[in-house]
Amino acid sequence: MTYQAPWPGVDEAREQLVGLHLSLVDNGLVAWTSGNVSARARDARGQEVMVIKPSGVDYAELTAQKMVVCDLRGTVVAGGLSPSSDTAAHAYVYRHRPDVGGVVHTHSPYACAWAARREPIPCVLSAMADEFGGPIPVGPLSAIGDDTIGRAIVATLDGHRSPAVLMANHGVFTIGPTARAAVKAAVMCEDVARSVHFAHQLGIPKSIPPELVDRLYHRYQTAYGQRDHPVASP
Amino acid sequence: MTYQAPWPGVDEAREQLVGLHLSLVDNGLVAWTSGNVSARARDARGQEVMVIKPSGVDYAELTAQKMVVCDLRGTVVAGGLSPSSDTAAHAYVYRHRPDVGGVVHTHSPYACAWAARREPIPCVLSAMADEFGGPIPVGPLSAIGDDTIGRAIVATLDGHRSPAVLMANHGVFTIGPTARAAVKAAVMCEDVARSVHFAHQLGIPKSIPPELVDRLYHRYQTAYGQRDHPVASP
Amino acid sequence: MTYQAPWPGVDEAREQLVGLHLSLVDNGLVAWTSGNVSARARDARGQEVMVIKPSGVDYAELTAQKMVVCDLRGTVVAGGLSPSSDTAAHAYVYRHRPDVGGVVHTHSPYACAWAARREPIPCVLSAMADEFGGPIPVGPLSAIGDDTIGRAIVATLDGHRSPAVLMANHGVFTIGPTARAAVKAAVMCEDVARSVHFAHQLGIPKSIPPELVDRLYHRYQTAYGQRDHPVASP
Amino acid sequence: MTYQAPWPGVDEAREQLVGLHLSLVDNGLVAWTSGNVSARARDARGQEVMVIKPSGVDYAELTAQKMVVCDLRGTVVAGGLSPSSDTAAHAYVYRHRPDVGGVVHTHSPYACAWAARREPIPCVLSAMADEFGGPIPVGPLSAIGDDTIGRAIVATLDGHRSPAVLMANHGVFTIGPTARAAVKAAVMCEDVARSVHFAHQLGIPKSIPPELVDRLYHRYQTAYGQRDHPVASP
Repeated sequence: MTYQAPWPGVDEAREQLVGLHLSLVDNGLVAWTSGNVSARARDARGQEVMVIKPSGVDYAELTAQKMVVCDLRGTVVAGGLSPSSDTAAHAYVYRHRPDVGGVVHTHSPYACAWAARREPIPCVLSAMADEFGGPIPVGPLSAIGDDTIGRAIVATLDGHRSPAVLMANHGVFTIGPTARAAVKAAVMCEDVARSVHFAHQLGIPKSIPPELVDRLYHRYQTAYGQRDHPVASP
Repeated sequence: MTYQAPWPGVDEAREQLVGLHLSLVDNGLVAWTSGNVSARARDARGQEVMVIKPSGVDYAELTAQKMVVCDLRGTVVAGGLSPSSDTAAHAYVYRHRPDVGGVVHTHSPYACAWAARREPIPCVLSAMADEFGGPIPVGPLSAIGDDTIGRAIVATLDGHRSPAVLMANHGVFTIGPTARAAVKAAVMCEDVARSVHFAHQLGIPKSIPPELVDRLYHRYQTAYGQRDHPVASP
Repeated sequence: MTYQAPWPGVDEAREQLVGLHLSLVDNGLVAWTSGNVSARARDARGQEVMVIKPSGVDYAELTAQKMVVCDLRGTVVAGGLSPSSDTAAHAYVYRHRPDVGGVVHTHSPYACAWAARREPIPCVLSAMADEFGGPIPVGPLSAIGDDTIGRAIVATLDGHRSPAVLMANHGVFTIGPTARAAVKAAVMCEDVARSVHFAHQLGIPKSIPPELVDRLYHRYQTAYGQRDHPVASP
Repeated sequence: MTYQAPWPGVDEAREQLVGLHLSLVDNGLVAWTSGNVSARARDARGQEVMVIKPSGVDYAELTAQKMVVCDLRGTVVAGGLSPSSDTAAHAYVYRHRPDVGGVVHTHSPYACAWAARREPIPCVLSAMADEFGGPIPVGPLSAIGDDTIGRAIVATLDGHRSPAVLMANHGVFTIGPTARAAVKAAVMCEDVARSVHFAHQLGIPKSIPPELVDRLYHRYQTAYGQRDHPVASP
């Protein structure tokens, strides 16, 4: 994740988050009001803030104005609604991972199955090598609401190329240089969680040699997509 | 379920039920004309009544006017169509659970699988602790059409925090302080029935300690959502 | 199946078949151009004919005018396109089951799984007792294109209350007093094929005593739906 | 595959590819920007070229103008965007299989499960005999980006009637006399991958005798569809 563009302004981030939240719905990653996306943004004074979904609001009723702006401690600085109950976790990630521009949380069903067994998803598909560069790791069982989960996300992802982490008995958190990249990681995480689940249902998948995983990951991160829009960019 | 707002008027309930029935379709909980939602309402004289789906009518053709109004014994008091064949079960719940403002019945497929084996769904996901506060219990095998199922719903839910019950070899009933809350419980019941099914397909999920289940449930019921719209409200 | 209304006219049947074919798509029962629905109808001279989907035409491009009218031997009598390659099977059913007003064929995926193993679907859900009155039986492995399948459908359904039959290594045929009732049977067949599949994935479903199956079937066939539209009518 | 019509012009192919890519989405074969369709076409000078999806572009944003025209070595000859990173594989197929007018690549989930285990999909459904004339074979584990995959596709399909091949730990490639036929093969490949997966989950499917597979394949390839539009044509 080497994206170095300036963070979006708050209004731009608010607008982007409407469409990105609908992506979670369209890709079948969320049920009812669960799940959330946030983006790191820059406010009118040039300060870094985060913009996040309000807590418990229907996806169909989300608007740019309903998004909540918080500082990087998770304190609301603009918006009339309470922020996502996962705000402290997002904020922790933004404080400790200055390269991260977006964070996504879902309870997508196949990923949750791996999370409930506390098993990492093994890297047995080229699409998984492309996006995750190896297995998707599992973080510890944690309470919700304070920054415990944020700490676990950062600690678990350390040393992995994966932008996704499964939290034990809970769900998925993904990160990216932009909120859109984090949403992509959440979509691909469920996609591979599902295919690898299917593969294991009728036997044991064959493994991909680590050198090929490296080669696939490197190619995808550098050669896939458009020249001025490599894979890790918006 | 501590919602104490006045019950909606009959016309308001009729309108709400149109959208809530479409939610069952949109969330994949029903096939053809199966499934139904009812709401406790107050009629023009201030009496408590229930409003429910007509029997065997296509979801796409449901209108506010087609909903059927019954007294709390299940006798039709307004509407030109026959009410759901599960009316007696809904009526029994309203009579014996004065806190209940809405009841939902579905044959959602993953929940039906647990129901066909008569196995409660174990609480191995934080989203399940949030909404159900523990396992989703199973009621007995019952005939359909009289109040046997209503009795079984009330008896089985006694002592559980779960607003959902699986009826053996049959399907799901959920309750809530409002019809909308009961629909949410039906959506979340299928969501967790599915993820826990997936988890069990490849091994045994790890358990969540009971103290953490309690903590997650308490937090979700009190801190999730908007301050003036806690989770258990409309 | 005691529906005794006159069969629809050819033009009415053509129109109905457009919507009913879209129901197959909306319910996920068909891929690409597979599957078909036919209706028994009465032509301008009062003769019984059948109206059926043309072969290999996209669902999105079906119109009333593209439907093909055949006599009850399967010979085209009106329409510029070739009829479904399953026409001989449908025609055989209409000739030998004068109570049948509609026939549906699909390769719906969960039903196909039971069909590939040549296993009847056991009746372990009340919704299955309601609609099928017992297990869904399996017919023999057959070639396609002549009336071999038609014979197998009629012979296999003899002695069953089920309006659905699985054809070995092939798919589903359903019958009904109307084409709409046959489509409903196809939708419910896949719905129960799926839930019972899920149930078996994690254990053995509990059985429903035969007396209760009878009681559920009888109630559903006589008391479900609207008084002037019992379950088996259009 | 005996289709002998002239290849479409470049503009016609560009237009067709928009709709065909949306078919991949509508049939649930692709996640995010993965997957691609190409068509062999004839340019203004009468030379054979291929038209293909640009790399890493959202399906919802694909237009005829964004498609990329390459020669049959995979070198871009028209279009402002980089072509699919699978372009060399497509080009190899067009060079070595002069009968092929379209190539499709997906990571459709059930097919990927068979691919991850490197198991061919056995031919246990009549719909599979119809379209594939036998099992769907598996090609070797390969790197992505050069023509290694193209070679493997051509070599693996040699001696098979199947227009689909699973690439080990990767996904599906399908071919056809037209791009539309290749998309159909991709749709049917996932459909049978899924049904046969379901069949194996609860036991062992019964086999179809090879003579009947032959008979079903022959009938489908010659008698299915409209007389002037046999199954293998556009």
